[in-house]
Amino acid sequence: MELLRLGAVGEERPYVRAADGTVHDLSSVTAEIDGAFLAADGIARARAALEAGDLPAAEVEGLRIGAPIARPGAVVCIGQNYAAHAAESGAEPPKQPIVFFKTPNTVVGPNDDVLVPRGSTKTDWEVELAVVIGKQARYVDSDAEALACIAGYAVSNDVSERAFQLEQSGGQWSKGKCCETFNPLGPALVPADEIGDPQNLDLKSWVNGEPRQASNTRDMIFSVAALIRDLSQYMTLDPGDIVNTGTPEGVALSGRFPYLAPGDTMELEIQGLGRQKQTLGKA
Amino acid sequence: MELLRLGAVGEERPYVRAADGTVHDLSSVTAEIDGAFLAADGIARARAALEAGDLPAAEVEGLRIGAPIARPGAVVCIGQNYAAHAAESGAEPPKQPIVFFKTPNTVVGPNDDVLVPRGSTKTDWEVELAVVIGKQARYVDSDAEALACIAGYAVSNDVSERAFQLEQSGGQWSKGKCCETFNPLGPALVPADEIGDPQNLDLKSWVNGEPRQASNTRDMIFSVAALIRDLSQYMTLDPGDIVNTGTPEGVALSGRFPYLAPGDTMELEIQGLGRQKQTLGKA
Repeated sequence: MELLRLGAVGEERPYVRAADGTVHDLSSVTAEIDGAFLAADGIARARAALEAGDLPAAEVEGLRIGAPIARPGAVVCIGQNYAAHAAESGAEPPKQPIVFFKTPNTVVGPNDDVLVPRGSTKTDWEVELAVVIGKQARYVDSDAEALACIAGYAVSNDVSERAFQLEQSGGQWSKGKCCETFNPLGPALVPADEIGDPQNLDLKSWVNGEPRQASNTRDMIFSVAALIRDLSQYMTLDPGDIVNTGTPEGVALSGRFPYLAPGDTMELEIQGLGRQKQTLGKA
Repeated sequence: MELLRLGAVGEERPYVRAADGTVHDLSSVTAEIDGAFLAADGIARARAALEAGDLPAAEVEGLRIGAPIARPGAVVCIGQNYAAHAAESGAEPPKQPIVFFKTPNTVVGPNDDVLVPRGSTKTDWEVELAVVIGKQARYVDSDAEALACIAGYAVSNDVSERAFQLEQSGGQWSKGKCCETFNPLGPALVPADEIGDPQNLDLKSWVNGEPRQASNTRDMIFSVAALIRDLSQYMTLDPGDIVNTGTPEGVALSGRFPYLAPGDTMELEIQGLGRQKQTLGKA
């Protein structure tokens, strides 16, 4: 089962996709897929309703796919969490997780246009495993407790403007991470128990159909569980918050590929979580 | 007129304080003081209702003071925006605004306890002028347009853990800014037109009654208008977002004062915006 939000921007409604591919209306269970829903055991309730046959099949052909979670309270990002990407960025692998932020209003649907900011010459892609928090994480002691705080996973594009991030920022990366449309998310929120081990997922990206990134989450320096445990020592993660867990090598910052321009397309895929595709426009 | 949110944590209700000091119930105008209220010309509607005598006087003795804005979408922070503070931090004055973030769940009432994080040895205070956004700011061209996006101002304490921020962060400051309770805000949201020029406000802080910071917003390197204009070039500021505009010299990071410990008190005051006081506890 996957959780979906479908409909026009600001008018998304909740759905589930069953294992057989059929899509069902979830609005009898919840008006919204958000932190409050996840914290109130929403995924278990959705699954029970689906299995009981209580969710009517829905005709969703042609509906826009929204981000699968509404109104995240925070979008936490982890930097240089794959050794080969740290190297292509000119950095040593970090000894502790490096944390920066995107503003929550950067989150858009997985296939919505991404806008090249005004004045940008270095807009770049980053495929990442997004963790969606389902239960508050505060001073978590163990990996098991950390994993129990996770509602599910989604594909995330941590779009970045490298000049804003590195050349005009005084060293604080968030400045190049918060431009409008800079966090396509989805297509689906896949419950954690349907993924099992998050450290064995292929993740890939393409620009204009040509391969860019191709790695596996086993190459993370800090595992998903280690990240949640670490973050919870100096911030409280709330239900509905998102953690973008870092990107592997193969981005334009490496110098091996050109930066993005209006008209380009990005595609991103993670094993078991689906695929997204954006066209670049102009802000 | 000032806007207030009073009541227990999570149960705050909206009020206004009139120029004569009387407090009035605002709940006939809005259920909540938040971005949606501000965007829908809420301050003008509150003022009109107050002037028309439509807001009943309220007995608020003993009620807790909450943060004057509910659920900010983002808490944007500006680093080293006073030259003397940059110097005490060992840095040159920045050539462009330096941006980092606090998670919105750090925002608490102005007199709520601040918790020293587990493992912390370097918890520090920072009095700051907080700007509350009332109208979306996106690619703003002029100072006048920037100021028109501001709903009002409040006192903010950008509490910081310096080891988390500087020694364990890989250089990304936000890591020491997001601990729970780390952003006391208030007591009031004072409408921008009641403050007039935001660049001539005294701001001060004390620890255990002893003076620490004493400066004036005229010493900002980047003015409030310049900050909003600059930020809007690489992020969209939405109604209800908060911008902490930087702190003047006189923090513990300077080496001139000890860091905070449980049992200490912090007091912060900005001319025309009121005063806040927190006691330090333990997380």
